[in-house]
Amino acid sequence: MSDSAVETPSRGRRGRSGGREGNARRGGPAIRQMGWRDNIISDPPTEPIDAEGVEKIHHTAMRVLEELGIEMLNTEAIEVLRQHGATVKGSTVFMDRDMVMEKLSTVPSEFTLTPRNPEKKLTIGGKNIVFGNVSSPPNCSDLDTGRRTGTHKDYQNFIKLTQYFNCIHFAGGYPVEPMDIHPSIRHLDCLYDKLTLTDKVVHAYSLGAERVEDVMEMTRIAGGLTHEEFDATPRMYTNINSTSPLKHDQPMLDGLMRLARRGQPTVVTPFTLAGAMAPVTMVGAVTQSLAEGLIAVVLSQCINPGVPAAIGTFTSNVDMKTGAPAFGTPDYVRATQITGQMARFYGLPMRSSGVCAANVPDAQATMETMFSMMAAVTSGTNIVYHAAGWLEGGLCASYEKFIIDCEMLQNYQAYFDKMVVDDDTLAFDAMKEVGHNGHFFGIQHTQDRYEEAFYSPFLSDWQNYENFRDNGAVWTHDRANKIWKQILEEFEAPPMDEAIKEELQAFVAKRKEEGGAPTDF
Amino acid sequence: MSDSAVETPSRGRRGRSGGREGNARRGGPAIRQMGWRDNIISDPPTEPIDAEGVEKIHHTAMRVLEELGIEMLNTEAIEVLRQHGATVKGSTVFMDRDMVMEKLSTVPSEFTLTPRNPEKKLTIGGKNIVFGNVSSPPNCSDLDTGRRTGTHKDYQNFIKLTQYFNCIHFAGGYPVEPMDIHPSIRHLDCLYDKLTLTDKVVHAYSLGAERVEDVMEMTRIAGGLTHEEFDATPRMYTNINSTSPLKHDQPMLDGLMRLARRGQPTVVTPFTLAGAMAPVTMVGAVTQSLAEGLIAVVLSQCINPGVPAAIGTFTSNVDMKTGAPAFGTPDYVRATQITGQMARFYGLPMRSSGVCAANVPDAQATMETMFSMMAAVTSGTNIVYHAAGWLEGGLCASYEKFIIDCEMLQNYQAYFDKMVVDDDTLAFDAMKEVGHNGHFFGIQHTQDRYEEAFYSPFLSDWQNYENFRDNGAVWTHDRANKIWKQILEEFEAPPMDEAIKEELQAFVAKRKEEGGAPTDF
Repeated sequence: MSDSAVETPSRGRRGRSGGREGNARRGGPAIRQMGWRDNIISDPPTEPIDAEGVEKIHHTAMRVLEELGIEMLNTEAIEVLRQHGATVKGSTVFMDRDMVMEKLSTVPSEFTLTPRNPEKKLTIGGKNIVFGNVSSPPNCSDLDTGRRTGTHKDYQNFIKLTQYFNCIHFAGGYPVEPMDIHPSIRHLDCLYDKLTLTDKVVHAYSLGAERVEDVMEMTRIAGGLTHEEFDATPRMYTNINSTSPLKHDQPMLDGLMRLARRGQPTVVTPFTLAGAMAPVTMVGAVTQSLAEGLIAVVLSQCINPGVPAAIGTFTSNVDMKTGAPAFGTPDYVRATQITGQMARFYGLPMRSSGVCAANVPDAQATMETMFSMMAAVTSGTNIVYHAAGWLEGGLCASYEKFIIDCEMLQNYQAYFDKMVVDDDTLAFDAMKEVGHNGHFFGIQHTQDRYEEAFYSPFLSDWQNYENFRDNGAVWTHDRANKIWKQILEEFEAPPMDEAIKEELQAFVAKRKEEGGAPTDF
Repeated sequence: MSDSAVETPSRGRRGRSGGREGNARRGGPAIRQMGWRDNIISDPPTEPIDAEGVEKIHHTAMRVLEELGIEMLNTEAIEVLRQHGATVKGSTVFMDRDMVMEKLSTVPSEFTLTPRNPEKKLTIGGKNIVFGNVSSPPNCSDLDTGRRTGTHKDYQNFIKLTQYFNCIHFAGGYPVEPMDIHPSIRHLDCLYDKLTLTDKVVHAYSLGAERVEDVMEMTRIAGGLTHEEFDATPRMYTNINSTSPLKHDQPMLDGLMRLARRGQPTVVTPFTLAGAMAPVTMVGAVTQSLAEGLIAVVLSQCINPGVPAAIGTFTSNVDMKTGAPAFGTPDYVRATQITGQMARFYGLPMRSSGVCAANVPDAQATMETMFSMMAAVTSGTNIVYHAAGWLEGGLCASYEKFIIDCEMLQNYQAYFDKMVVDDDTLAFDAMKEVGHNGHFFGIQHTQDRYEEAFYSPFLSDWQNYENFRDNGAVWTHDRANKIWKQILEEFEAPPMDEAIKEELQAFVAKRKEEGGAPTDF
């Protein structure tokens, strides 16, 4: 806490981005939002277990790798691990803790991701935290037309919202699956949209060699990069999930290896629901998640020592009456915080998520998402997936929830501002001036500061009841409904060199002609 | 963190109260809730400023008391402070830091509050946190009939909800003002209801000598106590607010002194909205709040050294466009955390609140209240006022919000459970048993634990979308609407000795005959 009185100029209220209010507004009427900013969390993380507990979890995760092994359904991955010292029995890979710790020692604790607009470069690791859009739901909903299967149009809309909000730092997976595009060419249309409608960091699904290679190539083209420039530093990333318990599938491992060879990072995120695919005890579920995650990180280092990787957590509990997954529960928060302790133990950046089980953008959705975000902010999480728009345990992207969540993210970003204690903020002279019978509205100390003194919401309504009522008593989800439509109306794509756009179009056309990607796995 | 692997038996999942699910259900159908429990927060508080910042705030708060003084509109209080070393000019009282720190040295850092049911005794201070109902709104609302002025019936309903929920530890001020009872006798009817419909800790408004004395006497009668027994240990408390900037009013100070003489605690809570009655900088607003709060705590020690007192914070910001107060903002969270640092510096227990600016029980209300509760939980707050039911910056008590907030409080209580790392929770043998292709639902390790493994909500709906839709797609506020009505239907008052009840009735009748309390201040 020694530097807590120092305000970093680039993050402050009058920082490079215009401070809390920001400079993002281009004349559109929708909202006045915060500027683009890097977030540093100065508060120490919350640590629910002690050093002995950390050692016990580590020891047990190592026993899982040593004694139970992980099934790796990818012959190439098995062979690589075997060559680096692992023991293989059938498709099950065992490794001792010395090998694990040696391989983990080459993973950078912090790395950057540079998208086509280098001003939106992200730092992943340390005390940094970045937010991404909801990813991968097959459905979407809005309050006008209800819930339906996602379309290309919906996909584009959510990508526009992703670009619009400065509090969304990266364009993760597809914010909704465009089910009206054939899976063989879906990745081509989706990445073309993502790379032209946004200028933020993008992601490749590890769902087959062609998809992974196509996304890397399109990201390279969009950045105007040579192959060497692309390989030289992280430009994008992938995410892989294990098939818990204790198993990794072929395409996921393939994607990790393809990216690793080209210096691009993988976030390894086991999906361990306690009581279903993992032990019913949260500590056990975290332990299993770590064993599954670490073996994939080890694999990345065998392929390319020093390539960035991050550990993800998706450990939550199920409703033991129905088996339904639950998110944003107290158990989820604690599991995330413990995973954060373990990520720091292993020196790895960490990912968690802004998630909920609720079906509609109401009080429950907000409560669960707030708990998820509290988990992210207090655990030392560096990358937050699904930070805006997620409903139904990930089965639905909600337009209104996207807006509500961005209000929440802005609140958190303002919360990250350092508190400065100096004569100016202590304000003794202001108190002296006002005395016992005045008020502070009119004095110079207030006038000089009021415009940027406090966080100013774009969605929350601070009117008193009488004004709220006279203005139609519009609930938050209905205000959000109006806002996303205004944003889409005024949306402007970020600039892109015409030659690059044509190169991208040509690439997409060629790959479509070739049939895109196989869809038989 | 050295004891984080040790689970306190009385708080654990199988503790004295039946663990997370609890034993509170008496056969009523409304909900299955958590049992009554003491809450200990093991996580260290979040501290936004460093030791130097703490010293600077202290130094400036002392300068306010030394150089600016506080106007004390109570001649008795002025005289007491003068006799103890303060300097008086007119009605303004000045004191040097030596006097302040000497007087603060006798305040206990922890104390108990024992209501008529001693099983519901509360510990205030240390790592303990307790929750109370919304207090003092003139209006109330429910989704059936909308918003209206509070009535005696509404008052009784909210008192019943206060008693019903085990996560509500004390019955603070009136959860809604019963405007249909004349102010001269309102306190008599309200306290009679509170003392018969609940068996939890109660509070006296410091709004005139008669009210304060009546409430102390009724609390004594309800507890079946002699005057000596009442005086011997804290049985109830009062709350006083300063009239910021830098002023205390007559009746508030009178109430504090009356309670202090009888060994009963006061929570001193300046209401310092930054930019209005306090400096526009949050650090300055906190500093002013402390100066205002500390002088009243000093007064209590002059009256009765060692009588318990707590420092409250109500420092938030206003909307600088309209002057409307805002709550649950990032600025509010940081101000609360800094106040927590200062409370620990002075060795005082601390109070904060579960507050919001929203007008309806929607996403905004939940987000703001979640931020307020996050402030409470991370600041070292010991007493949380308004933890259930608050809307509109305190101008309205909402039936549905009360239910939603109790779900939130239960989530937080589950979050306070310590995480145990041992062979049982690490679950290596369970992972070994399930292997690479099984699942954990059916194994003995799961079967032995699933009923109490996770927090189980009473309001949140974890059904998948199809079931949610088929069951009517009921939003959270509408589910809450159904629940509060069910609870009121099945409510049973806690037992009370018939003789005590008659004594209370006789006291109320006598005092009404005498005209109650004057209403001319």
